[in-house]
Amino acid sequence: MTYPIGFIGSPLDRLEPAHKDPHMLARLAADPTALLIDMTDYVPSVADGRIMWRAFAPLPPEETLLLGLIDGTPRFAHIDPSAVSAKRSSELMALLDSLEPGEAATYATARSLLDWHARHRFCANCGVRSLPHHAGWARQCPACGTEHFPRTDPVVIMLAEHGDRVLIGRQAAFPPGRYSALAGFVEVGESIEEAVARELKEEAGVVATAVRYIASQPWPFPSQLMIACIATVADEALTLDLTELEDAKWVDRAMVARALAGDSDGAFGAPPRYAIASSLFRAWLAGQ
Amino acid sequence: MTYPIGFIGSPLDRLEPAHKDPHMLARLAADPTALLIDMTDYVPSVADGRIMWRAFAPLPPEETLLLGLIDGTPRFAHIDPSAVSAKRSSELMALLDSLEPGEAATYATARSLLDWHARHRFCANCGVRSLPHHAGWARQCPACGTEHFPRTDPVVIMLAEHGDRVLIGRQAAFPPGRYSALAGFVEVGESIEEAVARELKEEAGVVATAVRYIASQPWPFPSQLMIACIATVADEALTLDLTELEDAKWVDRAMVARALAGDSDGAFGAPPRYAIASSLFRAWLAGQ
Repeated sequence: MTYPIGFIGSPLDRLEPAHKDPHMLARLAADPTALLIDMTDYVPSVADGRIMWRAFAPLPPEETLLLGLIDGTPRFAHIDPSAVSAKRSSELMALLDSLEPGEAATYATARSLLDWHARHRFCANCGVRSLPHHAGWARQCPACGTEHFPRTDPVVIMLAEHGDRVLIGRQAAFPPGRYSALAGFVEVGESIEEAVARELKEEAGVVATAVRYIASQPWPFPSQLMIACIATVADEALTLDLTELEDAKWVDRAMVARALAGDSDGAFGAPPRYAIASSLFRAWLAGQ
Repeated sequence: MTYPIGFIGSPLDRLEPAHKDPHMLARLAADPTALLIDMTDYVPSVADGRIMWRAFAPLPPEETLLLGLIDGTPRFAHIDPSAVSAKRSSELMALLDSLEPGEAATYATARSLLDWHARHRFCANCGVRSLPHHAGWARQCPACGTEHFPRTDPVVIMLAEHGDRVLIGRQAAFPPGRYSALAGFVEVGESIEEAVARELKEEAGVVATAVRYIASQPWPFPSQLMIACIATVADEALTLDLTELEDAKWVDRAMVARALAGDSDGAFGAPPRYAIASSLFRAWLAGQ
């Protein structure tokens, strides 16, 4: 693959022991080389394909997120108690496309955690305002003591495969001409393979007879684990759920190759290279 | 494999369109053949390897969980507003071992959802008491309108492999002699493969050079997605994190086969057959 999988390969050493050791955390926060990720309203400062950092001035413990170490230097983010939940803009997505995947992965970690804090200020168990703890990797309720951990929601994203063709679909919100792999959240009580089969059946009416895992990536909008699979299906007849998909169609290898090459006159426009759908198309073309 | 993967293969058709259609839900609830899963304090009634159901009498909408259809019959569970969070007992685990995996999967779905409701009564966004909606597959806050969906926390569980041996570990809380695969939660901002490598490094000090996906299962204590992998590692030297593992050791194929056969005089006691660690050992013995 010419472009690696997006949002993976962060150079962060997460320094898990420091999450539960206030002395170690304080030592790292006092390190004169410590750096703070430079972002405003969840949009990172970027230069030459890399995210920018600035000098870190120690914050109150409940506003301190220790991302980890990069190149031996402690890296922090600011849990702003007044922050609102994150929005996704086309400007941000263009910016991410300019980042190396490992840099995007570091940003994704910071963004998902900060946005989780902004959207989970209260204890789901008793309703009292909770506080960040574990160096920003959890929250705890001062009233009932319940610990809350960041969510990571598993999502399956898959190509149905029949002979030498795969199924692609588009949602109404996609840019004009864009098609991608079908996707959906893994639900309570099902395996990855069962979620793939259920989503293909629900959204397109196709029946999976075998599912193979291809790759995974974190996706920070807001905090998914994308699990990419290819499913062999019994036949190509479609019954679309038009509340989920605006259209779906079968495409062959030549059509997928043209789309990945950026040919705007082809059968469809491909998803951005940092999305795992792009990696999935490339893996399928490579015979995986 | 003689025993399939545990907790998969539920016969439930989840009837997703009914989650957002109160008329369809009301029609299903009024169906004279509708059934309620028979359980007390999260422990199911079981007979002949199957979970038991009883006649369903319609409940208030905010106490109604539509599990789906089995054999054309609507299946429900009761969201008891006074329920406390679930406990796991050795009696329950023995009961689950007596269930067919598909039956355990249906139970797992009900248990995880009901327990999620019991532990998430308040809106994490504003602290007001939220209410079940979407036929019990979500909650919504009456004050700020935020929708909350059940958690499914992805966990990697893996065998490190070196030559013809794999690494097994035990936690202090395990039954005497029991060893299993190492495991840990996938964290924000990392892929499955990165989580496997991080956990092996953190817990055992071994360095993964390649990770291959094997299988997955839902795990209802309380609501994990277990993702089983095998990781090739560079060498067998161990540096254990004794806060996570009481012990870890390398075992060969004969030792694993003896443990899976239930030989109590072997190198270790195997995890229960319904745990994906058991499937992972069997997959490794089969050369996957």
